[in-house]
Amino acid sequence: MVNAAILVIGNEILSGRTRDANVAFLGGELAALGIPVAEVRVVQDDTAAIIAALDALRAAYTYVFTTGGIGPTHDDITAAAVAQAFGARLERNAEAVRCLKLRYKDEDLNAARLKMADIPAGATLIDNPVSQAPGFTLDNVFVMAGVPRIMQAMFDTIRGQLRGGAPQLSRSLTLVVREGDLAAGLSELQAAFPAVEIGSYPAFTEGRSLVSVVARGTDAPVLDDVMAQVRALAAALGTAILDE
Amino acid sequence: MVNAAILVIGNEILSGRTRDANVAFLGGELAALGIPVAEVRVVQDDTAAIIAALDALRAAYTYVFTTGGIGPTHDDITAAAVAQAFGARLERNAEAVRCLKLRYKDEDLNAARLKMADIPAGATLIDNPVSQAPGFTLDNVFVMAGVPRIMQAMFDTIRGQLRGGAPQLSRSLTLVVREGDLAAGLSELQAAFPAVEIGSYPAFTEGRSLVSVVARGTDAPVLDDVMAQVRALAAALGTAILDE
Repeated sequence: MVNAAILVIGNEILSGRTRDANVAFLGGELAALGIPVAEVRVVQDDTAAIIAALDALRAAYTYVFTTGGIGPTHDDITAAAVAQAFGARLERNAEAVRCLKLRYKDEDLNAARLKMADIPAGATLIDNPVSQAPGFTLDNVFVMAGVPRIMQAMFDTIRGQLRGGAPQLSRSLTLVVREGDLAAGLSELQAAFPAVEIGSYPAFTEGRSLVSVVARGTDAPVLDDVMAQVRALAAALGTAILDE
Repeated sequence: MVNAAILVIGNEILSGRTRDANVAFLGGELAALGIPVAEVRVVQDDTAAIIAALDALRAAYTYVFTTGGIGPTHDDITAAAVAQAFGARLERNAEAVRCLKLRYKDEDLNAARLKMADIPAGATLIDNPVSQAPGFTLDNVFVMAGVPRIMQAMFDTIRGQLRGGAPQLSRSLTLVVREGDLAAGLSELQAAFPAVEIGSYPAFTEGRSLVSVVARGTDAPVLDDVMAQVRALAAALGTAILDE
């Protein structure tokens, strides 16, 4: 079974300063490629923490995608930590320097910016069409930027290299119902369709109790069957369906 | 050193359907209480995955806060998984049943809703002022709802029980500058103030390169010193400062 983990690197996520957007993007994109994300970890800008998480994840999952910590400042330590995790040398990468020269004049290519061309030996670069400083791939680990727009552009350049299983499809319906009234029927439905992952997500808006029922799996007709059963359940309970 | 981890439980976060909001909330609240969040994990609605993550985190950090998986449906398995992790019996909790009776008429208190009163033996309930179904505390683990409004209300009821260190304070300035031009100065500043965590976060808006410099630590005058140095650095580079 092909799967993935995401390792988010950055104190700003843990301190609450920044609300991560990369997990939601990657989770959706990877599911569509048939590479469900099975775990996410968020760690500090700390070499030991990065290495421990990376080693655990790269041993357990098909692919690991890291975000954050590959910029020019002192708190950008991801490339060095990944090199250390793999026992690889961190070296000035000539191709990465060429990428940086597309953006920066020679007099602007200072030591801090050149640090972004220090890449573990043996890695393959990931193009950065937005701001040139590249990410890289080493074994099953894809090291990408933390800024969402740059991360997404990098992901677009590696998408074709990823080998997934059957695409994860999903169907959803939102019912005007209290979750506890739906629970028994959903439980029976889940038992009847063990290959489908049925999720139930309550929300409360404008004084109404809503439940979004999500069915995920790889077989479209089966998912359509499940959703037909959800509609039948809603009809039996006399509950309205939204978002059709 | 007092610290914390957050364990987010839910397929909907990993699939990209839902963008988590609880980490940003808890990260900020806990930092203010002097309990910095050192790690986050997101796992599937899977008993083994929940137990493995919970056991690793509760051994490594002062506090663990879980979100998600305590509702009435078949995919809500957090309480049972936590009980198993602690080797505790999951039992119908009379106080939790009383909470549920505040919300539900007897005829609505079906098996699915009563499941929300199944709590590990030895746990202390966490009040839920929004929808009554309680969370619980067991040893250093706080089990809370995933719906942000409910999680936040639960957190308000436990805030007073938490024992933090010195509150983590922060200062920030946003400069109109390219990060690589600021990097050398920031690196010197970080070296001069090792007790302060200085972060540099680039953004690109309306064609301008911006960098937010964030200083975090426990000593307000020292943080003010650091930010004065950041202003001096900006002046030396001839860069404008926003958000003053």
